[in-house]
Amino acid sequence: MPKVSEAHREQRRAQILDGARRAFAAHGYDGATVVELEREIGLSRGAIFSYFPSKWELFYALASADQERIGRLWLEEGFESVVRATGEESPEWVGVYFEIMRMLRTDATLRERWAQRNPELHVQVTEHLAQCQRDGIYRADLEIEAIGQFLGLVLDGMTVHVGAGFPVDVERTIALVRDALSP
Amino acid sequence: MPKVSEAHREQRRAQILDGARRAFAAHGYDGATVVELEREIGLSRGAIFSYFPSKWELFYALASADQERIGRLWLEEGFESVVRATGEESPEWVGVYFEIMRMLRTDATLRERWAQRNPELHVQVTEHLAQCQRDGIYRADLEIEAIGQFLGLVLDGMTVHVGAGFPVDVERTIALVRDALSP
Repeated sequence: MPKVSEAHREQRRAQILDGARRAFAAHGYDGATVVELEREIGLSRGAIFSYFPSKWELFYALASADQERIGRLWLEEGFESVVRATGEESPEWVGVYFEIMRMLRTDATLRERWAQRNPELHVQVTEHLAQCQRDGIYRADLEIEAIGQFLGLVLDGMTVHVGAGFPVDVERTIALVRDALSP
Repeated sequence: MPKVSEAHREQRRAQILDGARRAFAAHGYDGATVVELEREIGLSRGAIFSYFPSKWELFYALASADQERIGRLWLEEGFESVVRATGEESPEWVGVYFEIMRMLRTDATLRERWAQRNPELHVQVTEHLAQCQRDGIYRADLEIEAIGQFLGLVLDGMTVHVGAGFPVDVERTIALVRDALSP
């Protein structure tokens, strides 16, 4: 086996993830066959699966990257930027998340692992919420977990509207969430 | 063709819808093949499709009945009862809704028809929200449409959590929505 540089490996990994995202968005999770993945990625199944052992691992890597990106945005610009970014998500890509709900619901191991993606980021966002509460942005009478769950609920509701192609008024949603959580 | 009584037709219709709901919940929308539908319903495909012209019409009839039931609950017991009922929905059945999002997104005619289910009920719920606002339950500075969209967003977010098997604190959600919309 030829020795490949780390930079080359990284580049390949990015190529595979980019193509997989396009394939999932275009055909859905179930519809993205190995043939479709090969076509969008431009590599053979052997090459693809030497980087990611399964289709699920490909999707998981993409979803973890999404979560990382959203978490960073949350830490750096706050929840309201996350709501705006969610409103601009690709409906096709968002739809893939809803396809995997059945897998998450019926597989406890998968669900547990899903919930534990990027554990450090989860800690950082929780700490960020606590800081917002100390700064008087969020009311003091709620537990951090309650704040986090409510914000997650609103984001998931927005995701449904984006994924189904229903209209959503982003700024009005932000204002109402602010009214619910402000002191 | 033998003449069948209206009561018999109604009974058959209910039998078909009950079986179809079980088949969709057990196998998903895509997974519910004609063979599975026949098995759960206990009738031949000829009999089933003489009542409903397609699988989509079967699902549409079930979804309309859901909407009717939720709408009645909303009118009779208020939004908070709807939130509680959503928290107790069958995750398997809820999951079917997420499967059809792709169809709704990619088919404008279907999406339009979907949004226009039970138009009278929609008018009644809107009128109910306006009455709540006049009664001082909802703040006066929001348009009815904004209130309705926010409540819908929260319900859809809850549905995601139910469908994925994530925990959701129903009473805390109700309290936060109240805080957002109270005068």
